Amino acid sequence: MQASQILRPALDAIGAQIDARFDRLLPLPDDPRRPLYQAMRHAIIGGGKRMRPLLVVASSELFHVDRERAMRVALAIEAVHSYSLVHDDLPAMDDDDMRRGKPTVHREFGEAVAILAGDSLFALAFELLADEATHEDPFVRCELVAALARASGAAGMTGGQMMDLAAETGEFDLDVTTHLQQLKTGALIGFAVEAGAIMGKVGLHTRLKLRGYARDLGLAFQIADDLLDVEGDPALAGKALKKDRVAGKSTFVSLLGIERARSRAEMLIDQAIHHLQGFGPEADLLRAIAHFAIERDR
Amino acid sequence: MQASQILRPALDAIGAQIDARFDRLLPLPDDPRRPLYQAMRHAIIGGGKRMRPLLVVASSELFHVDRERAMRVALAIEAVHSYSLVHDDLPAMDDDDMRRGKPTVHREFGEAVAILAGDSLFALAFELLADEATHEDPFVRCELVAALARASGAAGMTGGQMMDLAAETGEFDLDVTTHLQQLKTGALIGFAVEAGAIMGKVGLHTRLKLRGYARDLGLAFQIADDLLDVEGDPALAGKALKKDRVAGKSTFVSLLGIERARSRAEMLIDQAIHHLQGFGPEADLLRAIAHFAIERDR
Repeated sequence: MQASQILRPALDAIGAQIDARFDRLLPLPDDPRRPLYQAMRHAIIGGGKRMRPLLVVASSELFHVDRERAMRVALAIEAVHSYSLVHDDLPAMDDDDMRRGKPTVHREFGEAVAILAGDSLFALAFELLADEATHEDPFVRCELVAALARASGAAGMTGGQMMDLAAETGEFDLDVTTHLQQLKTGALIGFAVEAGAIMGKVGLHTRLKLRGYARDLGLAFQIADDLLDVEGDPALAGKALKKDRVAGKSTFVSLLGIERARSRAEMLIDQAIHHLQGFGPEADLLRAIAHFAIERDR
Repeated sequence: MQASQILRPALDAIGAQIDARFDRLLPLPDDPRRPLYQAMRHAIIGGGKRMRPLLVVASSELFHVDRERAMRVALAIEAVHSYSLVHDDLPAMDDDDMRRGKPTVHREFGEAVAILAGDSLFALAFELLADEATHEDPFVRCELVAALARASGAAGMTGGQMMDLAAETGEFDLDVTTHLQQLKTGALIGFAVEAGAIMGKVGLHTRLKLRGYARDLGLAFQIADDLLDVEGDPALAGKALKKDRVAGKSTFVSLLGIERARSRAEMLIDQAIHHLQGFGPEADLLRAIAHFAIERDR
């Protein structure tokens, strides 16, 4: 059975749950803040692969973490991911018109509202994590906050976005491109995978295994994205493709060629799964996600 | 003695400490992320009144909170305040060229870097709060994170910024303008004042007094800002003035006139100080800040 046959229903189920929860979390106020909430809802409800939330749920299952708690962390990470897309799509950044099959937030609500909607979703992520509904142990909640803040800041995601901007003016080699992607997408994927271990209060040895899995998965995921950018169907992707090539940015495909990029992604997925040795069937979802990362068509 | 004679040295001392700490926290990396860190440093080192950090230190002194811990919260709130100014100054928002006597971040580093520098400072704030150096009790750290996230999100600061955008197209009455300012600047000032109470683990009764102080102080502070916008010296302010009038926005001055605005600010300061009844000389710094809020020339 293909990983996508296992995962599509799981992703659809998570997506529906996330939509329902954000619908409750973000009721439209009857005051001049209304467009801000509309923009936040536009950015986060009804769209996206929901890969990061699924990773949180999958890593939480490894350690029998309560599903409700895992979902709150999943909401937080999806809030950060969605905010980063809203800002990334802005005219001053990637200047994209379509995202998740819809107009981008700034196309629908204007740039100023898009900037504020991104900022607001970022704040919401930390509000969610710090609340005691996320975990009864405040030490665990602080660890989650610290890990998400690190993963999304200058030592993580925004640092990677900065490197991505610099990539437009200078050609990066494979090492720098790898470092860029480890920060830009890898750091948040790493947090998603480690979140289960933080909530399950497991030791460093187990956390290192999960970090290894996340590192390899994140890179393979990005190589698959680069391949889809070249070979994919924009209708399925819900966004413009081939932008990196037009911008002259170094990608894994431009640096390695299609065939070597594909075999590198496959090798990384083998490695990612290898890190899960020692786990039984409770890690099957993480294994299926790894296969799915390079099989997907969007 | 005028409040400014007490406060200028205190503000200068806090400012120097904050500069030194951010200098250590944000060393320039030798990789393509360098402009991001330069922009973050530009935004947060060497400038600003440092009112919010002083409020954190002053409220912490009430409850004998360790000064080092108070300083970490002061750094976090200054990171949030500075990030909000960077985003507020963007061309899509207020389109300002000067801030704190220097070119705005987007004028110096470009819009894309400015967006990311703001995002990165926001992340840094939560990283600072969640770290155990901020408080030995993780429950207190979680409370700080939750309170700062609420104060800076759609129910607080960004909600107020959204109302401010809406103010450009419709005239707001005094109630709506008050609500706008309570969110846009009041929420973060409220967090600054309450932070000492959170770290000092004091009861709700005491916290309510401080909330009352912060609410009145925040509004008086904003009215003083509106007065400075009309009557102030741009060289002292370090930014363009009279922008609200040009934009046709409702302000306390446009709604009340200069004289009534001034007497309202004075009344609010009396009220703010009244909330501090029951505290002894340990609240003198908070009292001086209240006087200073409407005496300042920048």
